Amino acid sequence: MKQSKVFIPTMKEVPASAEALSHRLLLKAGLIKQSTSGIYSYLPLATRVLNNIEAIIREEMERVDAVEILMPALQQSELWEESGRWSAYGPELMRLKDRNGREFALGPTHEEVVTSLVRDELKSYKQLPLTLFQIQSKFRDEKRPRFGLLRGREFIMKDAYSFHIDEASLDETYQQMYDAYDRIFKRVGLNARPVLADSGAIGGNHTHEFMALSEIGEDTIVYSKESDYAANIEKAEVVYTPNKKDEAPLELEKVETPDVQTAQELADFLNKPLDEITKSMVFNVDGEFILLLVRGHHEVNDVKLKAYFETDNIELASQDDIFNLLGAHPGSLGPITDKDIKVYADQSIQDLTNIVVGANEDGYHYLNANIDRDFKVEAFDDFRFILEGEPLADGSGEAHFAEGIEVGQVFKLGRKYSEAMNATVLNDQGKAQSLLMGCYGIGVSRTLSAIIEHHNDEQGIIWPKSVTPYDLHLIAINPKKEDQRELSEQLYEQLQQTYDVLYDDRKERAGVKFNDADLIGLPIRIVVGKRASESIVEVKRRDNGESEEVHSDDLLQYINDLYEQLN
Amino acid sequence: MKQSKVFIPTMKEVPASAEALSHRLLLKAGLIKQSTSGIYSYLPLATRVLNNIEAIIREEMERVDAVEILMPALQQSELWEESGRWSAYGPELMRLKDRNGREFALGPTHEEVVTSLVRDELKSYKQLPLTLFQIQSKFRDEKRPRFGLLRGREFIMKDAYSFHIDEASLDETYQQMYDAYDRIFKRVGLNARPVLADSGAIGGNHTHEFMALSEIGEDTIVYSKESDYAANIEKAEVVYTPNKKDEAPLELEKVETPDVQTAQELADFLNKPLDEITKSMVFNVDGEFILLLVRGHHEVNDVKLKAYFETDNIELASQDDIFNLLGAHPGSLGPITDKDIKVYADQSIQDLTNIVVGANEDGYHYLNANIDRDFKVEAFDDFRFILEGEPLADGSGEAHFAEGIEVGQVFKLGRKYSEAMNATVLNDQGKAQSLLMGCYGIGVSRTLSAIIEHHNDEQGIIWPKSVTPYDLHLIAINPKKEDQRELSEQLYEQLQQTYDVLYDDRKERAGVKFNDADLIGLPIRIVVGKRASESIVEVKRRDNGESEEVHSDDLLQYINDLYEQLN
Repeated sequence: MKQSKVFIPTMKEVPASAEALSHRLLLKAGLIKQSTSGIYSYLPLATRVLNNIEAIIREEMERVDAVEILMPALQQSELWEESGRWSAYGPELMRLKDRNGREFALGPTHEEVVTSLVRDELKSYKQLPLTLFQIQSKFRDEKRPRFGLLRGREFIMKDAYSFHIDEASLDETYQQMYDAYDRIFKRVGLNARPVLADSGAIGGNHTHEFMALSEIGEDTIVYSKESDYAANIEKAEVVYTPNKKDEAPLELEKVETPDVQTAQELADFLNKPLDEITKSMVFNVDGEFILLLVRGHHEVNDVKLKAYFETDNIELASQDDIFNLLGAHPGSLGPITDKDIKVYADQSIQDLTNIVVGANEDGYHYLNANIDRDFKVEAFDDFRFILEGEPLADGSGEAHFAEGIEVGQVFKLGRKYSEAMNATVLNDQGKAQSLLMGCYGIGVSRTLSAIIEHHNDEQGIIWPKSVTPYDLHLIAINPKKEDQRELSEQLYEQLQQTYDVLYDDRKERAGVKFNDADLIGLPIRIVVGKRASESIVEVKRRDNGESEEVHSDDLLQYINDLYEQLN
Repeated sequence: MKQSKVFIPTMKEVPASAEALSHRLLLKAGLIKQSTSGIYSYLPLATRVLNNIEAIIREEMERVDAVEILMPALQQSELWEESGRWSAYGPELMRLKDRNGREFALGPTHEEVVTSLVRDELKSYKQLPLTLFQIQSKFRDEKRPRFGLLRGREFIMKDAYSFHIDEASLDETYQQMYDAYDRIFKRVGLNARPVLADSGAIGGNHTHEFMALSEIGEDTIVYSKESDYAANIEKAEVVYTPNKKDEAPLELEKVETPDVQTAQELADFLNKPLDEITKSMVFNVDGEFILLLVRGHHEVNDVKLKAYFETDNIELASQDDIFNLLGAHPGSLGPITDKDIKVYADQSIQDLTNIVVGANEDGYHYLNANIDRDFKVEAFDDFRFILEGEPLADGSGEAHFAEGIEVGQVFKLGRKYSEAMNATVLNDQGKAQSLLMGCYGIGVSRTLSAIIEHHNDEQGIIWPKSVTPYDLHLIAINPKKEDQRELSEQLYEQLQQTYDVLYDDRKERAGVKFNDADLIGLPIRIVVGKRASESIVEVKRRDNGESEEVHSDDLLQYINDLYEQLN
C-alpha cells in the first residue's frame, strides 16, 4: 500500500497523561486516536495488527476444536436477572433502554447469552463437549480508564465457553485451551507466563492468568528464574520452614507506647526490628469477628483469608465495632483479651518468643507475650503476601517480582451459570444433569499493547513479523527524482508479489520519513536514495539496525533470506 | 472440522412469524438464533460465511486504496450535537449514560466519529484523497424489526468514508467504490443491481443503492430487461410522449357528485375510465400552499415533488387548511378557483381535453374543464410514480418491477458534516477549505440473507463456493462400521489438505444426516456408505443433484475437476 493513502498520524509529543510505554508508542506511531476517556479508534496500522492477532487466535482455536460464533452486544436484562448478575454487577455494567423501555446491558462478557444459546439446543451428553468462541468489542464502564488500551471502556476480546458432562472432559478442554494460549502468545511474540490466579471463594487451582511482563502492570507476578513457576501475588504460596530462636520466655510486661500508630512507629519507638513486632487486625468474617496476627513486615492477603474461610464475605471491622469489642483502636490491638474473639495467626508467628502485641488499651503494648501462655491461637496458616527473595513453593529458589499485564485467563466456571439458568442435558443414565462450563478470555486489544511493551526501543516500535502491519517498508527518499521513483515503483511491484509492502511515496523530507519508519517499526526497511541510478538500495533491519547495500537484481533473494532469519 | 464439534442446531419447523425465505432458511439450517426481537447470535456456519464475505470486502476495499480502521460503537453525544443529529435522529438512535452521567449514542453509522477523527490530523490537500473503512456491529432501534437479519436492531455493516479537496476527486472515488461494490456482490454470488436512488432534497444523481432481488423486499425496483437500467421506484423517471386526443372543447358543466370521495368512486359514478378523470391535492411547500393535479390512475411521488421544489419541507395540507383556503374538502377539490393558489400538474395532464375536476364545493365536480380556458397551470412536470409497462427513461423498453433488498449504498455527502464539524484542510492556495465527503455502506449481515434468498431450493440452502462455510461435506453413513469409519477418516485427512471439510461423524441416522446436509447446502457432498469396503464413495453436487460413484484413489482429482466447474 502506498503510504500516501494510509492514515498514519504520527506525533512528536504525546500528552503527559499517557503513562504506559505502549500507550505513548500507540499514540506516537499513529496507531490509535482517543475518542473520549477510555474509548479509542484503531487506525490503519493498529487494525492490521489486530487482524493478524485475530487470525492467529482463530487458527489456534480451530486446532482445539473451538468453533467461532458471534453473539450480540445488546443483552436483554432478563438473561442477567436469571444469573443474578443484573443486580450484582455494579456500575461497570453499561445499561440502556430500548424505545419500548426494555432494559439491556452492553455485553462486558457473554456467560448469560451463551448459556441461553445452548440450553435449548443441547439435549444429550452425546453432543458434548462443545466449545464456542467469538471475537468482539466488549464494554465495561471502568471507574478510571487508563494506560491507553490496557484499561479501556470499549475493548476487543476473544471469549470462549466450553460445555461438558463431567470434570474429566472439562479438565481436558481446560488443558487444551491452556496449551493453545501458550502457543498464541508465543506466536504473537509475547513472553506471557501462565500464572496461578485466585478463583475467588470457590477455591482450588481452577484458574490461570496469562501475564505479559511490562514496565507498567496492573498485577504483580511472583516468579522463579529457575523454573516455570509463576503466580499472581495474591495466590503465591508462602513456604513456612520453622525457625524459632532458642530464647527463654520472659515475664509479660505492659509498656506505654504513646502516639504510636503504625508497626514501623512501634518498632522505632521500641528500638526493635520491624519483623520482631506484630500487627493485630480485626476482620468481620461472615458476621463473626476474628483477630488476625501477622509480623510487622508482613501484609495480610485478603484472597488467602477468603480461601481459608471459604467465603467472599470478609472485610476489615470498622473502628467502632473494634472499640465496642476490645475497648481500643487499631494501633493498640492484640490477642490478649478475655473477650469472645478467636485469634488466627500467620504461620511465621510461631517463630517468635517474647512477642510484642497491642494491649487492647489505647497507647499501651505488651512485651514478652507468649503463645499458649498468654493467648491462644485458633489456627496458624498462610495469611500474608510473599516477600521478594523468600523461597518459592515449587522449591526452585527464591521469589522474584515483576509487573504484568493480564492478556488472557482460563477459568473453570463449574455449574454457576448452568444451574442458575437451568441448562441441562440428559446423561448416559437418561437423567437431566446441569452442564459443567469453562470460560477462556484473551484481551485482543490488550495483547496489542503488551506486544508493544515488549518490542520497542528509543526510536519506536519493533514489530515481530507474525503480527507486523506490513512486512517491508519501502522508502523513496525523493520520489520527485525520476530514477528514485522509477526504481521504487519497480521494486514495489516486485516485492508486493511476496510481501505486504508499505511504500513511502510521500513528498516529505528524508528525516521525516526515517523518523516515521523507526516509529512505525516494520521489520525491514528498503531505502531507495542517491544510488538508485546504479540500482543500489539500502536494506536495514529494524531490530538491530544492521544495514547493507544491495543491488536491485539481488534484492528479492536477499530479503527472502533476511526475512527467514527474523523473529 | 468434525460435525460433532460444530454447533448446527437445524430445525424441522420454524415459527410462523419468519416471513422471509432467508429468515426461514437461516433458522432451519441452524445458522442463527434469536436472542430477542431484532437481535441474533450468528452460529458457526453463519460466522464462517460472514468471515468469507468480509474477506472479499477487505480485498476489494484494498484494491481501491480504502484503508481499514475500527471506530468505537460508543459515541459521545457532543459529537452528535456538533452535527445536529443528536436531536434530529429520533428513537432509532440508541442512547445511554455512563457512570458519570455523560450521554452516548450506540453508533448506527459513523459520520461524526470519522469526521472528528480526521479533522485534527488532515492539514493539507496533499494528504487527500483518503478513504477509510471499517467492518463492525451497528445499532438501530427499529420500530418493527423483521425478516430476520434483514431488519435487525444490531447488525453488521461495512462503512467507508472518503475525503476530498474537489468534486473531481470525489467523483473518481465514488466511481471506484461503485465498481468495487459491483465486484463484491458478483463475487459473493449476488445479482445486486445498482439502482439510482433518491438523495433527498440535495438533488442530482448523487447516490446509488445496490439492490438484490428477492421474494420479500423492502423497496420496489424499476428495471429493464433489455439494458442495465435500474432505479428505485422513488427515483424512476417517467418518459412523457404527448398523446393528446383530437377532441373539441365542450362547455364547462358543474355536476352533483354526492358521496364521492375517491377517484375510483368518481370514475364509477360518472361511468368514465379512471385515467380520464383527475385528482387534485393540496401541499404545503415551505409554508406556501400549492395544488397538484394528477390523473386518476397515477400516484403522487413525494420524492420527485421535493426534488422539483428543492426542499425537504413538503407535506399534505391539513383538511382544515384546505377548507379555509378553498371552501371544500379533499374529494371535491380542483384547479378552478379565484383563490391565490398556484396549480402544478403532472405532465400527462396535458393529454386531456374536457377534464373532470373537483368544483371546490363539497359534492360537486366540473366536467369539460380545459387548461388555459378554465384554469392556469404554473408548470407541468414529472410528479408521479412510474407504472409497470411504461417506457423507461433509457429508451430500452418497458418498466418491470421487482422487490429488492438494499445490500449497499454509495452516497456523496458533500460538505454536510465537514462544515458542521469544521473539518478543513489548506488548499493549494493556502486557504482553509472544508472537506468534500463520500460514504459507502454494505450491509454485511443483510448480504448473508440476500445470498440465501438467491441460492436455495425446496431442500435448503445452496452456497456459492466463494462464501460457503465449508467446501465439502463428507458423510459417514454409519461411522460405527469400521470400513466406513476408516475410509471416512482417511479421506478427511486427505481432503483437508486442499479443502475446508465438514465431516459428519455423528451417530445419527442416514436420513437425518442427508436432510441436514441438504439444509446446510455445502457445494459437494461425499458419502461413505455400503461400498466403503470397495473404496467406492458417492459424490453429489448440491446445485443440480447429479451424483456419481468414485473410487477413493481417484477422488481428489475428481473433486478438483468438479470444484473448478462450480459457481
